[in-house]
Amino acid sequence: MKGYNGKILRVNLSTRQVSSEEPTEEYYKTYLGGRGFIVHTLLKEVPRGADPLGPENKLVFALGPITGHPFPGSGRNSVGAKSPLSGGYGESEAGGFWGAELKRSGYDAIIVEGKSDEPVYLWIQNGRPEIRDARNLWGLDVAETEKEIRKELQDARVRTAAIGPAGEKLVRYASICNDITHAAGRTGMGAVMGSKKLKAVAVRGNAPPEMGNREKVLELSRWMGQNFKTKTNFWQYGTGQAMDYYEASGNLPIRNFAAGRFPEVEGITSQSMFKKGYVEKMESCFGCPVRCKKMVKLNQPWKVDPIYGGPEYETLGAFGSCCGVGQVEAIMKANELCCRNGMDTISAGVTISFAMECFEKGVLTLKETDGLELTFGNGPAMVEMVERIALRKGLGNILAEGTKRAAEVIGKGSAEWAMHVKGEEIPMHEPRYKQGMGLHYSVHATGADHCSGIHDDVVNKKLAEWDWIGLAESVPVYEMSGRKARMLYEVGLWRHLANSIGLCLFVPWSNEQVTQALEAITGWPMSSHKLMKTVERAMTLARIFNLREGFSRRDDTLPRRFASSPTDSTLKGVGVDPEKLASAQKVYYQMLGWDESGVPTSARLVELNIEWAAQYLHGGQ
Amino acid sequence: MKGYNGKILRVNLSTRQVSSEEPTEEYYKTYLGGRGFIVHTLLKEVPRGADPLGPENKLVFALGPITGHPFPGSGRNSVGAKSPLSGGYGESEAGGFWGAELKRSGYDAIIVEGKSDEPVYLWIQNGRPEIRDARNLWGLDVAETEKEIRKELQDARVRTAAIGPAGEKLVRYASICNDITHAAGRTGMGAVMGSKKLKAVAVRGNAPPEMGNREKVLELSRWMGQNFKTKTNFWQYGTGQAMDYYEASGNLPIRNFAAGRFPEVEGITSQSMFKKGYVEKMESCFGCPVRCKKMVKLNQPWKVDPIYGGPEYETLGAFGSCCGVGQVEAIMKANELCCRNGMDTISAGVTISFAMECFEKGVLTLKETDGLELTFGNGPAMVEMVERIALRKGLGNILAEGTKRAAEVIGKGSAEWAMHVKGEEIPMHEPRYKQGMGLHYSVHATGADHCSGIHDDVVNKKLAEWDWIGLAESVPVYEMSGRKARMLYEVGLWRHLANSIGLCLFVPWSNEQVTQALEAITGWPMSSHKLMKTVERAMTLARIFNLREGFSRRDDTLPRRFASSPTDSTLKGVGVDPEKLASAQKVYYQMLGWDESGVPTSARLVELNIEWAAQYLHGGQ
Repeated sequence: MKGYNGKILRVNLSTRQVSSEEPTEEYYKTYLGGRGFIVHTLLKEVPRGADPLGPENKLVFALGPITGHPFPGSGRNSVGAKSPLSGGYGESEAGGFWGAELKRSGYDAIIVEGKSDEPVYLWIQNGRPEIRDARNLWGLDVAETEKEIRKELQDARVRTAAIGPAGEKLVRYASICNDITHAAGRTGMGAVMGSKKLKAVAVRGNAPPEMGNREKVLELSRWMGQNFKTKTNFWQYGTGQAMDYYEASGNLPIRNFAAGRFPEVEGITSQSMFKKGYVEKMESCFGCPVRCKKMVKLNQPWKVDPIYGGPEYETLGAFGSCCGVGQVEAIMKANELCCRNGMDTISAGVTISFAMECFEKGVLTLKETDGLELTFGNGPAMVEMVERIALRKGLGNILAEGTKRAAEVIGKGSAEWAMHVKGEEIPMHEPRYKQGMGLHYSVHATGADHCSGIHDDVVNKKLAEWDWIGLAESVPVYEMSGRKARMLYEVGLWRHLANSIGLCLFVPWSNEQVTQALEAITGWPMSSHKLMKTVERAMTLARIFNLREGFSRRDDTLPRRFASSPTDSTLKGVGVDPEKLASAQKVYYQMLGWDESGVPTSARLVELNIEWAAQYLHGGQ
Repeated sequence: MKGYNGKILRVNLSTRQVSSEEPTEEYYKTYLGGRGFIVHTLLKEVPRGADPLGPENKLVFALGPITGHPFPGSGRNSVGAKSPLSGGYGESEAGGFWGAELKRSGYDAIIVEGKSDEPVYLWIQNGRPEIRDARNLWGLDVAETEKEIRKELQDARVRTAAIGPAGEKLVRYASICNDITHAAGRTGMGAVMGSKKLKAVAVRGNAPPEMGNREKVLELSRWMGQNFKTKTNFWQYGTGQAMDYYEASGNLPIRNFAAGRFPEVEGITSQSMFKKGYVEKMESCFGCPVRCKKMVKLNQPWKVDPIYGGPEYETLGAFGSCCGVGQVEAIMKANELCCRNGMDTISAGVTISFAMECFEKGVLTLKETDGLELTFGNGPAMVEMVERIALRKGLGNILAEGTKRAAEVIGKGSAEWAMHVKGEEIPMHEPRYKQGMGLHYSVHATGADHCSGIHDDVVNKKLAEWDWIGLAESVPVYEMSGRKARMLYEVGLWRHLANSIGLCLFVPWSNEQVTQALEAITGWPMSSHKLMKTVERAMTLARIFNLREGFSRRDDTLPRRFASSPTDSTLKGVGVDPEKLASAQKVYYQMLGWDESGVPTSARLVELNIEWAAQYLHGGQ
């Protein structure tokens, strides 16, 4: 099979059994990769009601057909499990080099099941898997882990996907880090890995899979090499360069989504880190000329080691404006601590901003914070709290549970300002500004996720790019309506696609080029029609997973705070009207072939060739 | 605008006003052509409850973007109106040269409204329309009409779309004939034209529209010129060459769909006409190398003039096996009479076979037939009856109303063997054999139509061709199920597409090539995803048209005869189970975004960007 290895590795950590499976070509065509592989596995194999941190949960690393091919943006992989944050479908993507290396080592996916008694790591070299002792690695941070594994294996080119102390301690938003700096941050996959006592997956291989039409792939790659600089400016400052524009437009969350302006914004932009000389260099993922990753260094007032990368936009927002912190150095340190410890910066930042609001409202006091003045804007307190969360110290132990659970423990009405959907903290795109993104947050299987969904303003600005797929209509950012649901449907499907094929959304490929690349890599005929059905297939299965776990339409909601906006904000007077949201959801559900309650119709299961999943809608497990 | 003229001609025959409209590019992109233009016009402009044969009905000739371009298969156009046969949405397609000539004369469509007091014809020369006196043409047959018009205009290259005496006499299945032999046969468009006293539309033009990428179009055309002979065998014997195979498989309707075998089948195949030396030559449509049209000549026992073409498969079936007639000469004559008089051969043949069954059952006697022994197999009686229908003589006057109305007049339980859906007679593909086609017959807006729908056996045989769009599954021909609904949905959409773009299904283009051609011709980016949404848009509007006219789910049915099969048939024991049909319909409806009753959901209207049509679902007109 072109584009794939045709093999999936299954590792049972309870029994220490390791086996290799070879799914049919039909399976690959139907589920394609990434999310498709993951959701198929979880729905069929994880029993209903399984504890996300128990041995019944399964952790699936899944590549896409594009992963690891000489095509810029192909450095990504997905990882999924039942989420300890939401209790529903969990999935996250990461870039780097690990995915490409896994592909070269002979597998398309790894299913990790059971639970080890002692810490272990998995070592895969050219198709030979081995479970190895990791007792000496337990407690090490992400970079130390990679270093020690390379030393042990006597191979400096081993790639690792590892957890840090946060994963070990089951912080519910612990991440899994590819190559130290590339985090699969969301939905707590690092905690699942930690619960299985799996410290790392180390890979090394030198057998890239064949391509259907190598020349065509290389032709596309050359084109991108020649054109990316005119189509994106991520090569210049990476992400976080438009923060002042975002602050002005109302897209930037400020002080736990409760404030309207953030005058210090200029100080926390990407450009400001360049100006201050903090950026050591720009790094890339596998085979990508864009090189959008900043590696930052700092000596004062904190020491920040560039080996841990640097803060991206989401991190600058979550630890910056969302915590009211204008001190970029504090953000850099918070970012480094998250990377060291293997912890999602969005959830960490938003959870701390939640705690700050609790503190400012007197719901948390110096007693609970062990003397920490946890006010908005207090950078050092924030940095300290990041470390306490990672190590579950004091209040950190509660905040390590995420906003939803923390609010349940803290009580006193704090649930009102716990900014999450389905337990997943809201990322740094204001759903009041980008209401299409808000609609997505509300309905997406993993909760509030920004790696799919749409950026309403960008879509409106680049409408011509969507002519190919037939979306000809601009819809105002603030509008929540059926037409906005259509925009989310038509545009969003393509963004979801990336999560099944291993593609980065930062490389400025057109949808047509992506389709061509998939055809050239797999050698299978590919149409946009087929690809969109494939996307809907995985989305529908994820929906079914959640329904089986007890989720319903009632969980498709946004925090009440979004119904209005702060009076000092550009968004003044703008809110996500709950009734309009509900009615746009109904439209969106139906576009996906779900009924008005968001339950997939049996007809759509037939259309998507997943009739097997019907049983999970009807009381089966 | 590339691929189009950007102009639509509006002709009011009551007021004799002629005007030209220039729709926006958005309109063209949204509705594309053919069915899209027609249904948009009918729904918005023809009032609910309008008499199909009254001045309120409108007759729309609509080209597709492909029509008239140097791309084999581009000779087709659509013509539509409220159907006098069904009372619902009416539409038919025809090939030939007329459509290409209309495109060169400056228009993409003609909307004919009102009604003339005296016979007229429309003459369009290079964008100059003129309503001309046709009193001298009234009563002439189709070929004579063209001849006289050419004489009058002193231009032997004028192309005509004309009606014959059947259209004038409002035979409810009268056709409109392009270039004499290319009939828009179904749904009675010729009767609508006759009711408006419009004898013909004569066109002449020499301004082909521009193409977005002429070189690409020519490259595709060259490819077809070099490859068609290996991909189709229509160039050899045209249609009707597989009739013996069809008889053996059970696909061939015999004796009004009531008998199982037809031993005389070999005598009525295309090959037999060749063997007997009846085929004068093969003709083509505009720009097509396939040349699949047989022109047949006969001197005894009837005189058949090759100017009227020759019988295609549907005609060989309808006048042959369906009437139990094994005498190919009789079929040839019946075909010639239909062409002369402008009358659909399928509806004529099936209506006569209905009358034959009435006669054999004693429901009709020699008294009603004026002495004609109207038994199955009686070729001369059949030929005589064709003429009587065209001229509405005796029993012919009743049969000119179609099987549904004829059965109402004749009574005595004859409705039981009136083989139609929504008043449209069933074509020559057995719904018991091709159950996907049967499902299509039951739900299609115009009734039992074979120009869209699927040939289950062919799809199964050529499954690889559908890999591009994602249908990977073979489903047995006899199966009526959700999976069969999926096949109809996925494959059928592409067949429906032809009816909006002006493309012939007999030219062996791949779906990908069609998509490329549309992109090259229009210069607009084209994806299969967008095209399928465009197809669904027109289908959904046609559905809404019917719902507005009082149709409901109950009209989506097949004659009860199909619930079982004749015992001497290959199909013995096979039937279309009404419950399975109903449940497959539900699945199909929902794939199209309609609810379980076949009513389009408001969400799908938003998805297809036709929210304007919602009013017609809710009591508006």
